[in-house]
Amino acid sequence: MSSIMWTEMQQQPEAVARTLERLLPLREQVRSLAEDRRSVMFVARGSSDNAAVYGRYLLETHAGTRAYLAAPSVGTHYDASLDLTDVLVVSVSQSGETEEIVATQDWATRHGAKTIAITNDESSALASSAHLVLPTMAGQERAVPATKTYVCQLAAMTVLGTALAPDPEALDDELTQVPGAIEAMLAEDDGIDEAVDLLAGATGILVSGRGLLLGTALEIALKLEETCLRPVRGLSYADLRHGPVAVVSGQLAAVLVSPLDGPMVTGMASLAEDLRQRGVKGLVGIGGTQQFRSACDITLSGPRLSEALAPLAAVVPGQLLVEKLALRLGLDPDAPRGLRKVTQTDGTRM
Amino acid sequence: MSSIMWTEMQQQPEAVARTLERLLPLREQVRSLAEDRRSVMFVARGSSDNAAVYGRYLLETHAGTRAYLAAPSVGTHYDASLDLTDVLVVSVSQSGETEEIVATQDWATRHGAKTIAITNDESSALASSAHLVLPTMAGQERAVPATKTYVCQLAAMTVLGTALAPDPEALDDELTQVPGAIEAMLAEDDGIDEAVDLLAGATGILVSGRGLLLGTALEIALKLEETCLRPVRGLSYADLRHGPVAVVSGQLAAVLVSPLDGPMVTGMASLAEDLRQRGVKGLVGIGGTQQFRSACDITLSGPRLSEALAPLAAVVPGQLLVEKLALRLGLDPDAPRGLRKVTQTDGTRM
Repeated sequence: MSSIMWTEMQQQPEAVARTLERLLPLREQVRSLAEDRRSVMFVARGSSDNAAVYGRYLLETHAGTRAYLAAPSVGTHYDASLDLTDVLVVSVSQSGETEEIVATQDWATRHGAKTIAITNDESSALASSAHLVLPTMAGQERAVPATKTYVCQLAAMTVLGTALAPDPEALDDELTQVPGAIEAMLAEDDGIDEAVDLLAGATGILVSGRGLLLGTALEIALKLEETCLRPVRGLSYADLRHGPVAVVSGQLAAVLVSPLDGPMVTGMASLAEDLRQRGVKGLVGIGGTQQFRSACDITLSGPRLSEALAPLAAVVPGQLLVEKLALRLGLDPDAPRGLRKVTQTDGTRM
Repeated sequence: MSSIMWTEMQQQPEAVARTLERLLPLREQVRSLAEDRRSVMFVARGSSDNAAVYGRYLLETHAGTRAYLAAPSVGTHYDASLDLTDVLVVSVSQSGETEEIVATQDWATRHGAKTIAITNDESSALASSAHLVLPTMAGQERAVPATKTYVCQLAAMTVLGTALAPDPEALDDELTQVPGAIEAMLAEDDGIDEAVDLLAGATGILVSGRGLLLGTALEIALKLEETCLRPVRGLSYADLRHGPVAVVSGQLAAVLVSPLDGPMVTGMASLAEDLRQRGVKGLVGIGGTQQFRSACDITLSGPRLSEALAPLAAVVPGQLLVEKLALRLGLDPDAPRGLRKVTQTDGTRM
């Protein structure tokens, strides 16, 4: 019997196609809401936060729009008096009911922000109080680990990132290829079993990526950790280089996510070579160029998409790893220990 | 014989006093540079990044000024075309020679940013090309782990945070108490040996804090990892709650940093209680209220400073732990494996 997580992963191509179909016509509304705004502030936690990391890079590199992630406690706990009259706040929550996110959006509105909610529930509290809703069309998600809702959040990010770009339609042709690219990733299992073997035998796992694919690395790390209950580090290439690379040892397995093109390919290849020289237990590479793949022990195919859109499909090999590793470890991928579907940050304050 | 790291830790009270004396008179210049600016963007890596995390919270909660951390690769690798004409960029680098930081500051200047450099070397490349320099007066730092330069960076953050506050002098009285508070922390070794025993026997370490003290938790985590070569996670309270709390087990030791006052005290106490219930191997608490301390196995004194300034002294018990744990493990705290004093992110591009 397949896990619910696996079934929901298979629904991703259609879910993304539906989401793009629904949201692309809303670009004009996004543009007009952003008219007098000079930057975008994302409000999110967990997987949604990883989607926001992608949104941040896409907005800055593709749309030329400054973007960054809020520290929600600045609103919820310190009730800081910030001038947000030139800020577009984008809140991201699968359920739309995570109280911290709803409260932060409300605080931002009181301080002059215009708000967009990206959520899988159009009737949620988050959606009801936003100026504009970009609903993800994932359908109900029952497994605790977010898969189709996460990928649909990324699709919503492309709508946002293209809406605010000088030429909103520049990526439209390639966007139509995304559902097919996800499907191709789902059908490809070369190397997966071997990678599961490696990760099952490692005492720790490191996942790294950079730039537009940093969020993908962080998301694979979070899923591996919370679903497979392994100690996993998600680190940017740069933060890793800046210190923690010192702890790489023969007990540690690494998963690296690389694009096929763009300014990060050289650095990701040399990171792979460096980790190998430091004697890492084993190196799984997702995507990347020939140089990158040669430095890895196990290579998983990445999508044939440009770096700007690659995150929508490059997470899929990571999902396959997570689901199989959980089963291998005798864990239930659908209901990891200690987690609930609607996550709340402050259990005691609900 | 004492380690160089230990000697430099002892120099912190004087170094901070010198830094404040030098920088407080520059507040007027900070204010006029920021006059037409609507937000602050920090550019930093490693320990300097942790100092910037404090700067971000202080600016937002105390000065009512929006602040966030740059993704340097947006400038250095993607050469994104962002409008920074309403942004004050604050670059933080001990050496002032980390190429990535210098390059990001230059990129920001080309896009209209005003720039402030916080560095320990007034003649560095970073200082030379900034509109204003806030030099930290730490003197030469020879141990690889930053201690006195890090605390002096925090002092520079208080200068920035008070310069942009409605009443710049509101914290001045308490600022004069900071060097004494650091001295008191250095003299206090109750619980340190016991905590070192605990950390030496754990397979993994988790360090957490929230809000104004989040940067302190991240800095203690980074130092423990790169100096003691242990797998250490630094996580915000909220990110921990949102998933990774599931991996807490009897093999893991936790270090929590709590303030004495402010909106985070309740949450930190309940986090301590929760970790204990989840069966963590042992819990070290730095600072905090009676409720927090009761939930911890080992308590280390925190500074008698308000939450806004506590980070300048609350890191000291962490430094004491790091230095002693390194020696206990037979490691050289002054020269951790695989790290250099002037850190470079992209070794291959220098």
